[in-house]
Amino acid sequence: MSFNTFGRVFRLTTWGESHGPAIGAVVDGCPPGLALSEADIQPFLDKRRPGTSKFTTQRQEPDQVRILSGVFEGRTTGTPISLMIENVDQRSKDYGDVAKAYRPGHADYAYDAKYGFRDYRGGGRSSARETASRVAAGAVARLVVPEVSILGYVSAIGGDAINPANFDAAEIGNNAFFCPDAQAAARWEILVDGARKDGSSLGAVVECVATGVPAGWGAPLYAKLDAELASACMSINAVKGVEIGDGFAAATLRGEENADPMRPGENGSPEFLANHAGGIAGGISTGQSIRVRVAFKPTSSILVPVETITREGEASEIITKGRHDPCVGIRGVPVVEAMMALVLADQKLLHRAQCG
Amino acid sequence: MSFNTFGRVFRLTTWGESHGPAIGAVVDGCPPGLALSEADIQPFLDKRRPGTSKFTTQRQEPDQVRILSGVFEGRTTGTPISLMIENVDQRSKDYGDVAKAYRPGHADYAYDAKYGFRDYRGGGRSSARETASRVAAGAVARLVVPEVSILGYVSAIGGDAINPANFDAAEIGNNAFFCPDAQAAARWEILVDGARKDGSSLGAVVECVATGVPAGWGAPLYAKLDAELASACMSINAVKGVEIGDGFAAATLRGEENADPMRPGENGSPEFLANHAGGIAGGISTGQSIRVRVAFKPTSSILVPVETITREGEASEIITKGRHDPCVGIRGVPVVEAMMALVLADQKLLHRAQCG
Amino acid sequence: MSFNTFGRVFRLTTWGESHGPAIGAVVDGCPPGLALSEADIQPFLDKRRPGTSKFTTQRQEPDQVRILSGVFEGRTTGTPISLMIENVDQRSKDYGDVAKAYRPGHADYAYDAKYGFRDYRGGGRSSARETASRVAAGAVARLVVPEVSILGYVSAIGGDAINPANFDAAEIGNNAFFCPDAQAAARWEILVDGARKDGSSLGAVVECVATGVPAGWGAPLYAKLDAELASACMSINAVKGVEIGDGFAAATLRGEENADPMRPGENGSPEFLANHAGGIAGGISTGQSIRVRVAFKPTSSILVPVETITREGEASEIITKGRHDPCVGIRGVPVVEAMMALVLADQKLLHRAQCG
Amino acid sequence: MSFNTFGRVFRLTTWGESHGPAIGAVVDGCPPGLALSEADIQPFLDKRRPGTSKFTTQRQEPDQVRILSGVFEGRTTGTPISLMIENVDQRSKDYGDVAKAYRPGHADYAYDAKYGFRDYRGGGRSSARETASRVAAGAVARLVVPEVSILGYVSAIGGDAINPANFDAAEIGNNAFFCPDAQAAARWEILVDGARKDGSSLGAVVECVATGVPAGWGAPLYAKLDAELASACMSINAVKGVEIGDGFAAATLRGEENADPMRPGENGSPEFLANHAGGIAGGISTGQSIRVRVAFKPTSSILVPVETITREGEASEIITKGRHDPCVGIRGVPVVEAMMALVLADQKLLHRAQCG
Repeated sequence: MSFNTFGRVFRLTTWGESHGPAIGAVVDGCPPGLALSEADIQPFLDKRRPGTSKFTTQRQEPDQVRILSGVFEGRTTGTPISLMIENVDQRSKDYGDVAKAYRPGHADYAYDAKYGFRDYRGGGRSSARETASRVAAGAVARLVVPEVSILGYVSAIGGDAINPANFDAAEIGNNAFFCPDAQAAARWEILVDGARKDGSSLGAVVECVATGVPAGWGAPLYAKLDAELASACMSINAVKGVEIGDGFAAATLRGEENADPMRPGENGSPEFLANHAGGIAGGISTGQSIRVRVAFKPTSSILVPVETITREGEASEIITKGRHDPCVGIRGVPVVEAMMALVLADQKLLHRAQCG
Repeated sequence: MSFNTFGRVFRLTTWGESHGPAIGAVVDGCPPGLALSEADIQPFLDKRRPGTSKFTTQRQEPDQVRILSGVFEGRTTGTPISLMIENVDQRSKDYGDVAKAYRPGHADYAYDAKYGFRDYRGGGRSSARETASRVAAGAVARLVVPEVSILGYVSAIGGDAINPANFDAAEIGNNAFFCPDAQAAARWEILVDGARKDGSSLGAVVECVATGVPAGWGAPLYAKLDAELASACMSINAVKGVEIGDGFAAATLRGEENADPMRPGENGSPEFLANHAGGIAGGISTGQSIRVRVAFKPTSSILVPVETITREGEASEIITKGRHDPCVGIRGVPVVEAMMALVLADQKLLHRAQCG
Repeated sequence: MSFNTFGRVFRLTTWGESHGPAIGAVVDGCPPGLALSEADIQPFLDKRRPGTSKFTTQRQEPDQVRILSGVFEGRTTGTPISLMIENVDQRSKDYGDVAKAYRPGHADYAYDAKYGFRDYRGGGRSSARETASRVAAGAVARLVVPEVSILGYVSAIGGDAINPANFDAAEIGNNAFFCPDAQAAARWEILVDGARKDGSSLGAVVECVATGVPAGWGAPLYAKLDAELASACMSINAVKGVEIGDGFAAATLRGEENADPMRPGENGSPEFLANHAGGIAGGISTGQSIRVRVAFKPTSSILVPVETITREGEASEIITKGRHDPCVGIRGVPVVEAMMALVLADQKLLHRAQCG
Repeated sequence: MSFNTFGRVFRLTTWGESHGPAIGAVVDGCPPGLALSEADIQPFLDKRRPGTSKFTTQRQEPDQVRILSGVFEGRTTGTPISLMIENVDQRSKDYGDVAKAYRPGHADYAYDAKYGFRDYRGGGRSSARETASRVAAGAVARLVVPEVSILGYVSAIGGDAINPANFDAAEIGNNAFFCPDAQAAARWEILVDGARKDGSSLGAVVECVATGVPAGWGAPLYAKLDAELASACMSINAVKGVEIGDGFAAATLRGEENADPMRPGENGSPEFLANHAGGIAGGISTGQSIRVRVAFKPTSSILVPVETITREGEASEIITKGRHDPCVGIRGVPVVEAMMALVLADQKLLHRAQCG
């Protein structure tokens, strides 16, 4: 089945292909009475928008969002919020190569195997263009959890990681990489530009931290907060790994090294002396920061020729021309943030449902 | 909310606490006509069963499963299959410590924060004992996907990894660690026994490979095969990270290094020259092996004292006595296998629904 | 698919066959902290229990419920509540007739057409015995909506209706028919006994009224309160029709006749001058009484021979021996009440999720 | 919560208000490869379109549907199909009355009670205008069940029923009432025109028959085919009752009167000698015609003054001016047909999922 709905009570349904007339999202279950206009959404779309630097695809999309329903006199009504973004720069290029042969690493072959055929224009539904819908919906989700601050950034590109000692949140907006380490950002300029000129691509790691989440959100057992985040992040194009807190590093530790000891804190809440767990225990938030790490593979759209087969099963070779991101992880930052917001909004409402 | 159901059309609902009279699972949506008896389930439970070596908890649970519904004359009827496992060895110990103070790293504090109180006996619902229900249901799921072989094993304990060159599937059953590398298994005996004697615990990495999955299973966008696997694995107790294929390693590569080139293969299917993607592209299976890696943290139940607070918010210290696994990842192997089977069964049926 | 789960956030999953070892329900999403023991459930099961008069089946089932999980120290924990009822009086009769030939009006043929075979013992999963699980779960649901009173009764049997002028709620418990009209009850004794002696059966209408539901519960558009009630009631065995408020009678009226005018009432709530709508407008409760009417067909299990075919497709005739209710609608009363409670509990929590 | 999604694997999500810029539907889970263009949908919208006779609202809406996604080169791709219908004739009238005071029988008060405020323009989300989205989606659903024919018609208006002896399917398209009885249609001209002139409104009964449904579709226990149909129909604006087969009439019968005897039929299928059950037994189709009856109340939008209260709780009186249907049941015919198609498409795919 094609399940294009995410969430349990705060629910996002997305639709649209890369080269159709538009893409969009329907947000259902939003609480009523929240102030909402296009201006609340647009900044997040602008953050994700292509064509803003040479380190992202040169496709020019204004990504202007329209709210078609669910808002009356500037406030959400509690009914579905329909968001639409028109596709503008669908370059009338020749998709002959992609139509005929499969791009390894892309969804081309898998879609054909599943559906018998596919919309090959720009990847169709499997295009990362869909993530604009998520970002738009994520902006609505943020309004549902005003107590939460969500901060995403790139922590590594092509294996070159930031130095935690240099971490400066204020730096994130100062470079084209959402990088909190000015020195790393400088290195990445060279690194990513090199890959771009080579017609190659680079993987990246995105980290996202949510602060202000109260203890108690989450839903054992199969809608655990961490399970929902894992699902949310793994559903993003090019993502191959998700960690909560220390993630795989925790697997190398002993119990006492991995402990997050607690002390009496201020105003009744405990003070934690560490946060190996990433703010989640037993699938439920502990009141600490929620920390997620997400691995983006290098995009498969490269100018280096790769061995492949045609739809007819014959041997071929393919070069993926076109306007592609040399490092898709960069523009993944607002998408991971959006998914974090969507999960937290859903879990907040679920918690309220059961626990009042 | 408490969402104790997993899956979309092949659905598992589990119930039960560590120290209640029983635990169980209801499997709904199972195709009719499959041969099923307790004997098809018991071997998988035995694999997960505690008390089988000194490297697992000494709790003695026969974990005998009973089928209470959904099977008639040895075949599934298409109606819900109710599976029940009685709790036998609920040692009448004093839970006073755990009732009064929170075990850091455990769900104790989070459950109290969410629900206002909790069943503190043995972790209650947050106990890994629940995973026995998953293993039982996973055995049913395997019958739904007979074309698939699922193989799980431990690939690292406490940071000590197997040598891929030594990989021998036949070794997995020969040691107490589900370890495919005899040399690593020998090292782990010492390592895990040391941690056990220290009253400490160790993290581990579990890998799971499914072969025989045809191309085309999966469901864009939010029920992608990899998103479902991520959710499934992250919902297991103590899991902090999930990777598909190369996972985080892919984030360090360039596009051409990460490519999975294709060639014409036998009987119409492509031959892939690599499997960095772990058998999934665009959320849909490619016909290659599905590869998942899962990080288990060291259990927080250790004899080393940890700073904590009481329910009343006062400073305290806690030692978690009782019968605990020094390395919960070991017994995670059959659980990860079960979740793999559950996801694949669900996706097979979903694919059949939409694509006939 | 076999969807044995009802509800969206307060969810009921039932399992079990008429002649298996047990039947049961898992209630998920129940708020924590509610006082709950078997004693809160048993009275409702006793109301539905067979064998209590000559007007119901003579099968003797104690229907003793056991709570297997989700309750700790007498209070719900917020985790799944597993309820089990053992089948005791599974008479070791010969089901040869039913196994070989289809009972018209029963699910026999439809189940075989769907699943290829069926558990024919006492109707298997399609038996009304499953409704005991609903009644048990409904008792839990009532605890979630303590502000609501739910009252069900039989308003007609075999076309012989109560006289509204005689309505006396106190009468309902005074006869074997849940009849609020003592005169009708007296007539029904003769009517139902006659049908029973003839080996025939009678249809009935059950009405159910919920008072105390505040304005605002319900969920446009496809989870409207009335749509959920319709689904809930139509899912009960033998039900063929559902009305909200005036139902089909409203279809004969003019707008002004059907109006429910409003006046300023006490403490801010409106006073309604009529309740044609049955307490629901636009799928949302208005604060008036919720009124539902449900049509039960006469059971198809009769001693009158009916033309049928065998599994092999040959002409035959069948008489349904065994212990059957001459009027299944009677025991439908606690079941309709339970479904009302389940829907209201779910909608209350859903409302709280979205609207705080 | 606001659940604007209908269906389990073939799923419809609708959005939009009566007086917003547009309304729409997202159809998810549609099988790939089906030929689909706007021309397949438009005729059904035209059937429902307002302003086509004096017996329906005079609002002029072209109801031109646009397909925004999910179709490539004239065929469905298996990805979400986004359908949009622009609102054109949103007359810039004064909604002051409706904004200030509640129209009894409408959702006005209930929406305010739930959400704290509402979009009062033309009923907002609670307007029957939303049903255009259902009709558009229903047209897609029909393509999923090409083996099924769905025929809806009005069987009674204001208590004046058709004569079954006059039933002629060919007549349905010959009058403004979807009436299969030419004599009744002639009477209704006078009846409905009278109500219209009086500023009043009339209730109606819509019947819908689906032929060609094979035995075996349906899903015990809570997604029974009849339960799904009941939910689907009861979710339509103004509907107050739903019957399957004989419905409430069955409640007046004895078992032998209500029996649907079976005989060996042609090519292996049974021949049924009656269809009291409306083609469904145990929640599963029997291969007979599926018969549903739906009661529509008279619309509450009348020119007759009705006592009411203002938002501030003060006594008032309201006359609902504007362009309203004197008998909303008439235009309910294509809506009921659409819901029938949606349920059957969903159940067909669900059946295929579980039973292959």
